[in-house]
Amino acid sequence: MGWGAALRVLADMDGVLADFEAGVLRAFVARFPGEPRVELAQRRGFSVREQYRGLREDLAAKIVSVYESPGFFLGLDPIPGAIEAMKEMIQMKDTEVFICTSPLRKYEPCIPEKYKWVEKHLGPEFVDRLILTRDKTIVSADLLFDDKDTIQGVEPNPSWEHILFTCCHNKHLELKPPHRRLQSWADDWRAILESKRRK
Amino acid sequence: MGWGAALRVLADMDGVLADFEAGVLRAFVARFPGEPRVELAQRRGFSVREQYRGLREDLAAKIVSVYESPGFFLGLDPIPGAIEAMKEMIQMKDTEVFICTSPLRKYEPCIPEKYKWVEKHLGPEFVDRLILTRDKTIVSADLLFDDKDTIQGVEPNPSWEHILFTCCHNKHLELKPPHRRLQSWADDWRAILESKRRK
Repeated sequence: MGWGAALRVLADMDGVLADFEAGVLRAFVARFPGEPRVELAQRRGFSVREQYRGLREDLAAKIVSVYESPGFFLGLDPIPGAIEAMKEMIQMKDTEVFICTSPLRKYEPCIPEKYKWVEKHLGPEFVDRLILTRDKTIVSADLLFDDKDTIQGVEPNPSWEHILFTCCHNKHLELKPPHRRLQSWADDWRAILESKRRK
Repeated sequence: MGWGAALRVLADMDGVLADFEAGVLRAFVARFPGEPRVELAQRRGFSVREQYRGLREDLAAKIVSVYESPGFFLGLDPIPGAIEAMKEMIQMKDTEVFICTSPLRKYEPCIPEKYKWVEKHLGPEFVDRLILTRDKTIVSADLLFDDKDTIQGVEPNPSWEHILFTCCHNKHLELKPPHRRLQSWADDWRAILESKRRK
């Protein structure tokens, strides 16, 4: 890699910093109280829309309407420990941290609310470190913490190691070595960073 | 580089696809008709704010208020030939094109309007290829067409070759070899792409 001494870390937003899954269930129940729902313990697969579609075809549009609503992204709670971890990471010597998130195709109100969320919970120095891209494979870094199990794009060999951040929808997946997980922000993310530093 | 056969091209937005300079002058004159202004032929330096500040201290805030206004980014005209070039490029064999733009720190209304501009002038397939980042050095590609003369970030050796896209504020700069320019979209951008393909 061409970069210098600093370790470069990308953190995904939904499911890693912001609790998308809890937020979407809570808002779905509030808006469609009589409809069947998928409890977090029953979530499987990255796409909440596809799982609701499997439950009943018309529920796909209903769950989408929930996360496309104004206020949804801004109202998400932080994942436990995420804010503290990010604020510690940005202070670490020889470490550059960025937030790397893929916006919804329906970019409003999603995108401005993602910026507002970062400003509110992490502050302006992280707003400057927000990268919006639907293809993460072309962002160069040492590490990508992401809850999506398969991350693909135009680059077949991304420079980062993908660390699967554990989330309700991926916790049952068995990773093949050398793939690694971070179980939560209480897990040893510092050791994962150290394992990637050039000696 | 790790990537496969496809040539990867990044195109900046303001000054390369969208005519920021003409737009800001036009809106400034409309809003502050009695104030001194910088004609496009007199523009020097990437920052329009700093040149207006040099003219008179309080004009810096006035020019900023112009480009931070609702409707400003969405109302920008396309740079001549830019839309046609992008639509040709996306159809080219073994070529992946992305739009790579650095949003204003004041991200509203700038950011949603950038997405709307791309949707309006280039269509949804380019919305999917929009990358927002204040640090372009960590996006990996073969080429970056950008009107900013010096592009810096955390990566000291970006993977792309920066092709300086000629704009009123940079046309007087003398580039040292091997730095290259694209004078406009009527200039031979296809030859620049071909020069980067792996034989």
